[in-house]
Amino acid sequence: MAAVVAATRWWRLLLVLSAAGMGSSGAPQPPNILLLLMDDMGWGDLGVYGEPSRETPNLDRMAAEGMLFPNFYSANPLCSPSRAALLTGRLPIRNGFYTTNAHARNAYTPQEIVGGIPDSEQLLPELLKKAGYVSKIVGKWYYEEFPINLKTGEANLTQIYLQEALDFIKRQARHHPFFLYWAVDATHAPVYASKPFLGTSQRGRYGDAVREIDDSIGKMLELLQDLHVADNTFVFFTSDNGAALISTPEQGGSNGPFLCGKQTTFEGGMREPALAWWPGHIAAGQVNHQLGSTMDLFTTSLALAGLTPPSDRAIDGLNLLPALLQGQLMDRPILYYRGDTLMAATLGQHKAHFWTWTNSWENFRQGIDFCPGQNVSGVTTHNLEDHTKLPLIFHLGRDPGERFPLSFASAEYQEALSRITSVVQQHQEALDPGQPQLNVCNWAVMNWAPPGCEKLGKCLTPPESIPKKCLWSH
Amino acid sequence: MAAVVAATRWWRLLLVLSAAGMGSSGAPQPPNILLLLMDDMGWGDLGVYGEPSRETPNLDRMAAEGMLFPNFYSANPLCSPSRAALLTGRLPIRNGFYTTNAHARNAYTPQEIVGGIPDSEQLLPELLKKAGYVSKIVGKWYYEEFPINLKTGEANLTQIYLQEALDFIKRQARHHPFFLYWAVDATHAPVYASKPFLGTSQRGRYGDAVREIDDSIGKMLELLQDLHVADNTFVFFTSDNGAALISTPEQGGSNGPFLCGKQTTFEGGMREPALAWWPGHIAAGQVNHQLGSTMDLFTTSLALAGLTPPSDRAIDGLNLLPALLQGQLMDRPILYYRGDTLMAATLGQHKAHFWTWTNSWENFRQGIDFCPGQNVSGVTTHNLEDHTKLPLIFHLGRDPGERFPLSFASAEYQEALSRITSVVQQHQEALDPGQPQLNVCNWAVMNWAPPGCEKLGKCLTPPESIPKKCLWSH
Repeated sequence: MAAVVAATRWWRLLLVLSAAGMGSSGAPQPPNILLLLMDDMGWGDLGVYGEPSRETPNLDRMAAEGMLFPNFYSANPLCSPSRAALLTGRLPIRNGFYTTNAHARNAYTPQEIVGGIPDSEQLLPELLKKAGYVSKIVGKWYYEEFPINLKTGEANLTQIYLQEALDFIKRQARHHPFFLYWAVDATHAPVYASKPFLGTSQRGRYGDAVREIDDSIGKMLELLQDLHVADNTFVFFTSDNGAALISTPEQGGSNGPFLCGKQTTFEGGMREPALAWWPGHIAAGQVNHQLGSTMDLFTTSLALAGLTPPSDRAIDGLNLLPALLQGQLMDRPILYYRGDTLMAATLGQHKAHFWTWTNSWENFRQGIDFCPGQNVSGVTTHNLEDHTKLPLIFHLGRDPGERFPLSFASAEYQEALSRITSVVQQHQEALDPGQPQLNVCNWAVMNWAPPGCEKLGKCLTPPESIPKKCLWSH
Repeated sequence: MAAVVAATRWWRLLLVLSAAGMGSSGAPQPPNILLLLMDDMGWGDLGVYGEPSRETPNLDRMAAEGMLFPNFYSANPLCSPSRAALLTGRLPIRNGFYTTNAHARNAYTPQEIVGGIPDSEQLLPELLKKAGYVSKIVGKWYYEEFPINLKTGEANLTQIYLQEALDFIKRQARHHPFFLYWAVDATHAPVYASKPFLGTSQRGRYGDAVREIDDSIGKMLELLQDLHVADNTFVFFTSDNGAALISTPEQGGSNGPFLCGKQTTFEGGMREPALAWWPGHIAAGQVNHQLGSTMDLFTTSLALAGLTPPSDRAIDGLNLLPALLQGQLMDRPILYYRGDTLMAATLGQHKAHFWTWTNSWENFRQGIDFCPGQNVSGVTTHNLEDHTKLPLIFHLGRDPGERFPLSFASAEYQEALSRITSVVQQHQEALDPGQPQLNVCNWAVMNWAPPGCEKLGKCLTPPESIPKKCLWSH
């Protein structure tokens, strides 16, 4: 089913692309890159992925005009490490965006965290600069809290994000190339929408937020076409992790037929909607079953820019251009980490769980439920269960909901286990874990007096510096 | 959101249709009707409904060229009563296709059943005959068991069904109009496929069966186009009940994001994939949120034929032509019966459960699970729970998985309850239940010596006639 294509092939491909993109100066002109990264949006939230209300006409059209990936994954089931992985092309276990304070804990970046992405990491926009790209991030993370009316859910923020994006595209369209990273957050609780969208969805406030984002993306794609740069702009849409089922039904999305959601390493936690659009380059109406990862956007973007990824470190991202342009399938595993722990791995259609955990009994009894309405005995466990000696294996084609572990005695189990074990061993032997960056918290590190605080009357005195171990509860 | 359109409107519409379909004789020529009814196929089994493997290119194209209904329902969560309702346009509680041996029991038609559809019922093909239609049923139910290799899953039956259909279409195409009811059963356990399809799906044997059916439907639509009768043939695709989750993962389908499956009155038991295709009449690429029912196919087919439904009895089917041709939405409830019991009702976005039940504890402990991996406390009950005094109400837009009942104290609950109660009372006051036909079983009534049995050496002597109450366990 899958064909591994030798690395040398990319180069021939890139030469073709570069030639096609010759600027008026005669120099090769790499395409613009527009990355649309959603926040807590689930696999099942788009009409084209089966959301029953079908309220995403612009994204559905984007899929019809481009390529849809049903088997695309985030690098982590939580926002911050997922985004750090995208920007570095490396798993959090490598780039340091994780914790060792306890095993299998999701860590992120509250304001009191001492760490962040280490300076030694090379970020995508830094690298793209070498190829002349002008980069902009719009959205999460941003300075100064923006008011969201928690009662009505009204906020104008997506419109501001949209306007920033449109202005940047207009400004840059004449001065190729650009990299625009549009990281909106309206679908992260507290979800919000602007007045024209509030109350318009069949799905409640979460749906209003989705509709406004869908509308905004429609406007961006339209602008690219109006400016006649669509065929020179690679657009990719995906999300940072699965829908946050703890926020359903009012403020959370849908993971379709998949198990559990955000924070977990079940499919609902990490399988993402993913659409690629590049008229004239990516043929319309395609579905590609390549196992993809948000980290691939790092490597693919570099390839589009004619750059090679850093060679002094392990890179987890794959160059997806053979999948995008030629419909090829490449062998590669998906690794599901939670903090310092490799919880699961997928190879082909088989997924092996080495550890299972949703959240602690203590949390669960307090009403925090990462898998509401779902319960798979021995799988959605509330203890961190060790299956490393005898992994649970699922066939994701026959059983996308991870409900029926293969029989340990079956030939299929043995064969899948042997293939996955070999790949995982290879990964673990070569792994040089990064220094964990999310172990230490300190209230003194918060930005107590940011520039402009005088005008807002919000300059505060930092408290005494007391570093302490961060508490990561799940 | 919904508009009730006066009945007189249909007539004007029909005149237009009839005029457009004038035959060469000058007489109005009603369209052919091709009804594709699946067996135990679930809402989530088509690519266009979000099945991750996306292996239904022909059905997905049918949707792209026609109209997709996300909110379409079967009349019953079990095969036989669902099909009886389709053919009569009436709920099983009216047409007698149910049991009163125990409450809320799904009854069907094993060979030892004494009853069936009563002679007093008027069946769709009988009625269509009045408008000159030639009718044919291909598929379930059929005489003489056809061999399915239970080990390999190989059987040629779908190909035979396909050939029968293609031959009939070819024969009738010159002699309009025809009604072809293509009721294949490859997706009912034991699922099967013919050799060229076996092992070709990412989803295992169930997927092989789906792929063969999808391929067959592609061939039928292609033939209609080749014969230049596509614009005079109304095609509708749907299924008889939700996927049989007891047969997953090897032999059962998917109900997408919905709760439970076949046998239950949760959405997974009765919400169905539904596609309408009629080039030149139904505009391409539409989604219609009309609450539809398989019983509507009865009334809609009659309307297409220029006939009115019988006026001497209550008909539950709605004429869907305003939805199909003009994208209109009509107010109507969906009633979820299980045997003699009205379990639930949906009106607009709100669904009220008056009773909840999956199956008995006794059954469940034996491993019969209608909701594998799913468990909603107080909802997926193993006792038949009475909520008639205080129904559980869900908002299906925000919560398609029926996981979060509305708070009894909320204004939304009160408002929804009052609207649904009024419609249900109206229904129940007007209801004249049919004589239950599925109460009595008798081994003597089986077809012990059918025509041709001599040749097969299978003529048997009937046993003594001992009528007894049928045992319906869930």
